[in-house]
Amino acid sequence: MFQSFEVTARPEQGPPRLAAMRAELEAEGLDGFLVPRADAHQGEYVSPRDERLAWLTGFTGSAGFCVALRDIAGVFIDGRYRTQVKAQVASNYTPVPWPETSLADWLKAQLPDGGRVGFDPWLHTPGQITQAEEGLVGTGIALVQCDNLVDRVWDDQPGPAAEPAKVHPIEFAGESHDDKRARLAKGLRDAGATCAVITLPDSLCWLLNIRGSDIPRNPIAQGFAILHASGAVDLFMDPAKLVELRDHLGDDVTCRAPDAFLEALSDLDGPVRLEKSSVPVIVADAIGDRVQWGDDPCALPKACKNAAEIAGSAEAHLRDGAAVVELLAWLDGQEPGSLRETQVVTKLEQYRRRDNALQDISFETIAGTGPNGAIMHYRVTEETDSTLEDGHLIVLDSGGQYLDGTTDITRTISIGTPPEDARAAFTRVLMGMIGMSRLIWPKGLAGRDIEVIGRAPLWYAHQDFDHGLGHGVGAYLSVHEGPQRLSRVSTVPFQAGMILSNEPGYYREGGFGIRIENLIVVEKAECPPGGDAHREMLSWRTLTFAPIDRRLIVVDMLDVPSRAWLNAYHAETLEKIGPRVSDETRVWLEQACAPL
Amino acid sequence: MFQSFEVTARPEQGPPRLAAMRAELEAEGLDGFLVPRADAHQGEYVSPRDERLAWLTGFTGSAGFCVALRDIAGVFIDGRYRTQVKAQVASNYTPVPWPETSLADWLKAQLPDGGRVGFDPWLHTPGQITQAEEGLVGTGIALVQCDNLVDRVWDDQPGPAAEPAKVHPIEFAGESHDDKRARLAKGLRDAGATCAVITLPDSLCWLLNIRGSDIPRNPIAQGFAILHASGAVDLFMDPAKLVELRDHLGDDVTCRAPDAFLEALSDLDGPVRLEKSSVPVIVADAIGDRVQWGDDPCALPKACKNAAEIAGSAEAHLRDGAAVVELLAWLDGQEPGSLRETQVVTKLEQYRRRDNALQDISFETIAGTGPNGAIMHYRVTEETDSTLEDGHLIVLDSGGQYLDGTTDITRTISIGTPPEDARAAFTRVLMGMIGMSRLIWPKGLAGRDIEVIGRAPLWYAHQDFDHGLGHGVGAYLSVHEGPQRLSRVSTVPFQAGMILSNEPGYYREGGFGIRIENLIVVEKAECPPGGDAHREMLSWRTLTFAPIDRRLIVVDMLDVPSRAWLNAYHAETLEKIGPRVSDETRVWLEQACAPL
Repeated sequence: MFQSFEVTARPEQGPPRLAAMRAELEAEGLDGFLVPRADAHQGEYVSPRDERLAWLTGFTGSAGFCVALRDIAGVFIDGRYRTQVKAQVASNYTPVPWPETSLADWLKAQLPDGGRVGFDPWLHTPGQITQAEEGLVGTGIALVQCDNLVDRVWDDQPGPAAEPAKVHPIEFAGESHDDKRARLAKGLRDAGATCAVITLPDSLCWLLNIRGSDIPRNPIAQGFAILHASGAVDLFMDPAKLVELRDHLGDDVTCRAPDAFLEALSDLDGPVRLEKSSVPVIVADAIGDRVQWGDDPCALPKACKNAAEIAGSAEAHLRDGAAVVELLAWLDGQEPGSLRETQVVTKLEQYRRRDNALQDISFETIAGTGPNGAIMHYRVTEETDSTLEDGHLIVLDSGGQYLDGTTDITRTISIGTPPEDARAAFTRVLMGMIGMSRLIWPKGLAGRDIEVIGRAPLWYAHQDFDHGLGHGVGAYLSVHEGPQRLSRVSTVPFQAGMILSNEPGYYREGGFGIRIENLIVVEKAECPPGGDAHREMLSWRTLTFAPIDRRLIVVDMLDVPSRAWLNAYHAETLEKIGPRVSDETRVWLEQACAPL
Repeated sequence: MFQSFEVTARPEQGPPRLAAMRAELEAEGLDGFLVPRADAHQGEYVSPRDERLAWLTGFTGSAGFCVALRDIAGVFIDGRYRTQVKAQVASNYTPVPWPETSLADWLKAQLPDGGRVGFDPWLHTPGQITQAEEGLVGTGIALVQCDNLVDRVWDDQPGPAAEPAKVHPIEFAGESHDDKRARLAKGLRDAGATCAVITLPDSLCWLLNIRGSDIPRNPIAQGFAILHASGAVDLFMDPAKLVELRDHLGDDVTCRAPDAFLEALSDLDGPVRLEKSSVPVIVADAIGDRVQWGDDPCALPKACKNAAEIAGSAEAHLRDGAAVVELLAWLDGQEPGSLRETQVVTKLEQYRRRDNALQDISFETIAGTGPNGAIMHYRVTEETDSTLEDGHLIVLDSGGQYLDGTTDITRTISIGTPPEDARAAFTRVLMGMIGMSRLIWPKGLAGRDIEVIGRAPLWYAHQDFDHGLGHGVGAYLSVHEGPQRLSRVSTVPFQAGMILSNEPGYYREGGFGIRIENLIVVEKAECPPGGDAHREMLSWRTLTFAPIDRRLIVVDMLDVPSRAWLNAYHAETLEKIGPRVSDETRVWLEQACAPL
C-alpha cells in the first residue's frame, strides 16, 4: 500500500524541537530562521529528509513556511490551510494568513530595527529573498545566509535518497537524450547562452531519460545538471544512484559528485541561463553577473509530449481507467452507511496494483464523502475517516504512476439518493467539463483566455469554485507540471502535445463537494466543411475513460451538443474499458454507459 | 445629412503635395518627415485641419502613418487597410505592412547611417518615438523634432475649430464638475501628485461637463487642462469656444489662452501625472523629470457611468431604437434589387433626425450588402455603392449622438432568401451575442477573461472573426471609449456602470458579412436562491432594443436558455419600442418580435 492514513505529525512534537532550534539561533547570534516547505529543487513533494516544516511545526500542508523568531514562531499558510493549521500546530506557533500578510510586513511588526534572520540559501529562490528585502528597506532588518538550523537539531533526520535510478526506455520517452540535448543546446546557442543550470529534477530526468525513486509520488532522481551549448551535460548526482545508468548516459554526460556542483558553477563562462522562480539563491550567487535569466530550457519541450509519450499516456489511462471502473462497480454494490473513506481508498489502490504495472500512486488519493468533499485538499486520516451515508456525494480524486504515463482522474459518486441541488450543481460542473472538452480555439491562446468555458455554466447560476480549471501533467513524471495551465493566471500559449487536467468543481461548505476530472491533450484541430480553412486552431483529445455518474445528471439541463458528447464519451468508454474489466463489472459498465 | 458619400481624397492629389513637402525637407536639411493620422489629442476622429495624412497621401483610413523620405514615401497601414490603401494612394507612395514592418526597421533599410527624420512633437507620444529610437540604436539615424512640414505647404488648410462649446446639463451628467474635480483631486493627492495634465478632449469635457463640435461624430471641445491637487483647473482653450461657459465653469476653473499652455507646464511643481500612451512628446518634454506616469485620472471615473448617465443612455437607446425599427420595417417592404446601400444609409439618418434630438451620427454608418458586408470597416461611397440583391445579407452598423447618450447598434438583415450557410453562421454569432448578454461573472475579471464567451459558438465550427467582441462607449461622448474593452488585449477589470458594445460577427470574404451588436452596461448581479451569496458577481443589462432578423435564425441550434433570452428580449423590444413607432411599423414589429 503506497498511501497511509497515519497522522504523521502531532502538535506536541513541535515545542521541544522549536526550543532546541532557538538555542541554535542564540548561538549564531540570529533573531530568527526561515523554514520553508521547499527543498533545493522547489518541487511540490519533498523527500522525508526535507520535511523540515512538518518536523518542526506539525503542519503538513503542501505550501507555507515557518519563521521562527526567539519569542514567536509564525506559520504562514494560504487560504486552503486556515483550518488545518489550527489542528496541527501547538499553541506556541502563530498561524499567519499569507499572502495577505507578507514576510516583510510580519518581520517589521515583530523585530526591532537591525534584526537578523537567517535562511538556508539552498532552499529559497532569489525572487523570494529579494521580495522580502525590498519590503524591509529602511528597517535595518536583514536576511542572512546561514547553515540549516533545523538540520542541526534534527537528530534522526533521514539521509539523502540513494536508490539506483533507472533508464526511461526510448519506447516511452520517444526521443533519445542525445537528440534532446542537441535540440536544447541549439536553443541555448541561439539565445547566446553558453550553458544552462538545471535544478528541477523533473527537467533533469526528462532531459536524460531517467527516472528515480527519491521522493514519494514523483518518479524522479534528484540532482543538478549543467547543459552546455555543445550538448554535453555535467550531471551532479550521488554515484549510488548512477549504477544502472553508465551505458545509457554515454560519453557526453559526465557524472560528477554532488559536492563538486558549486565549484563547477564558478568555473563556467557566461552567459549562464538560470530560471528565476526555481533556482536556489546559492546557485544564483555562484553565477553572479554571468547570469542570463530565462526559462528552464527543458520546461516547454517537456510539456509538449511527443507521439510515443502521448501513446503511452493513452495506454496508461486505459489501464488506470479499468481499475477505476472496477472500483466504481464495487462501490455501487455497497450499502450506504457500510463503508468508510479509507476503505474506498484502499480498495482503489488494490485495483490499481492488480497487474503490477503501478509504480506508485501519483498523489495521495482524495476521498471526501459528504461535507469532507467540500474540503478541496482533503486527505483522509485515521482521525477524519468518515462513513459514506445515504444522500452523500463522495469526491474521489486519484491517479497512478505507470512507466508509460501519469494519470489523474476525479469522479463524484452518489451514495444512495442524492439531494436535488447537488444534482443541479453536478450538471453545471459537467457542462463546464464537457464545454472545455469539446472546445476548439485559435492557436496562440493561453489558459487565461479560455478557462471561462469550464466555469460559465456555474456562473450563470451565481456559483463558482476557488481553484484553477486544470494543471499540466507529466509523462511518467510530476502530476503537476508547468508551464501550461488551464488557469486565469496562465498566459503560456497552448501547443500540440500538452497534457492538462480539466477539472471543474463545486463546493458547498458543510454540505457536499463535486469535481469531475479528465486528462486531455492538445491537438491540431482539423477544419470541418464550412469552417475557416485559413485559421490554425487547436482542440483537445480526451485521455481519461470512466463513466460519469448518471444519477447526478439533470438531463434536461444539458444542451444538445453536450448530451451528444456525453453519449459518445460513454460509448467510447464502454468500447475501450469494457474488454479490460471483469465480466461482472462489464455488465455494470454497460448500464453506466447507456445513452442518456 | 451628416453622412456624405463623397470620395474625399483622390490618388492624384498626393504627388504635387509630396513634391512641395520634399522641398521643405531639403530646406530643413532633413531626410524625412513623419505624418501620423493623429492630432495632438490622439483621438480616433480628427478635425479637417488635422487630416494631414489624407491630404498628403489620399489614404483615409482611421489608423496608419506616412514616412516621407526624399526618394520614397512609405504609407504604413494595418491588415484592415491593405486593399483600401492600394485604391487610394498614387504609385509614388509605397504601402508598408504594419506592425509587421516597424518604423525603425523600415528606416534602417531606406536610410544611410546618420539620416535625420523630422517629426512634429505635438502629434506623437513618447512611447511611439522611444520605441522607434530603440530600434535605431547603433545606426546613427535620428528622429528630430521640427515644425510641421505639411502645415507649411498646405495653403488652404482649414483653421482651428472655434464654435462655442456648450454646458452639458447636470440632468445628463449626474455629477457637478465641482464634485468631479474634488473627487479626482483627492485621488491625485493620495497618489502623491501635485497635478495632472489632461490632453484627451473627452476627459476634459467629461471633467468640466461641457460638450463641443470641434470634430465630426464626437461632441467634444478640444483643449488642454491642468487639474491641480487642490481641485482647481487651468483650462487652455480658444476664448471663442468659451463664451457660453463662463458662469458654468466658475471661479475654480481658470480659462487661459491655448498658447500659454507650454509655459504653464514649465511652472508646475512635480510630481505631475501624465498618461504615457496619449501625451504629446512636447508636453512630456516640458514636464521632464517631474513626471509621474500613470492613468489619466478621468479615464476610469468617466468609464463608470452614474445613475443619470445610465438613465440617459437607456432613454437615448429607446429613441434611437425607434428610428432603427422604422428603418427595418421600411427595408422589409422593399423589393430585392430595388435599393442601393446609400439609400439605406440616407433613410436611416432621416428616421434618426425626425424629432430633432439627434446631435450627430456617432460614426459613419456602415451599410455593406453581400460581399461588401465582409469588409469590416466598409464605408459606402458613390463609387462603391451596391444594390441589395436577393440572397444578400446587409450589415447595418450605425449610431447616434444625443444629449442624453451615445448609441451604436448593428443589425444584419436578410434580403430575399438567405443562403443556408449564412443562416448557420448567423445563428452562431447570435449564440455568442446572447451568451455574453446573459453572462454573470466574478468581480475582478477583465475583457481578456470573458471575451471567449462571445466567440466560442463560432469556434466549435472552426470559425472566428478578426475584431474584438466589444469596446467601451461614452455618455454623449466618443463611441469608442477606454479603458474598458471586451477584448483579448484588455486586462482592465469591469466595474458597475461601464457601457460596452457586444458585437460578435462573421465575415466570409467575397461572400457575406454578419454582425449583431447591442450596447450593454455592467451591473452588480443579484444572487438568486441557491447561488453562492458570498460571491460578488457582475452581470449585463441590455440598453439596445431592436429585433434580430428571425429569417436568419436556425432555431434548432439555439439552446434552451438562449432561446428563452431571445424571446424575452423581443417581448421587451415590442413593449418598449412599440409605443414609439408608427402604427404601420408597430404591426411589422409585432411579427418581428413574436416568440420563436
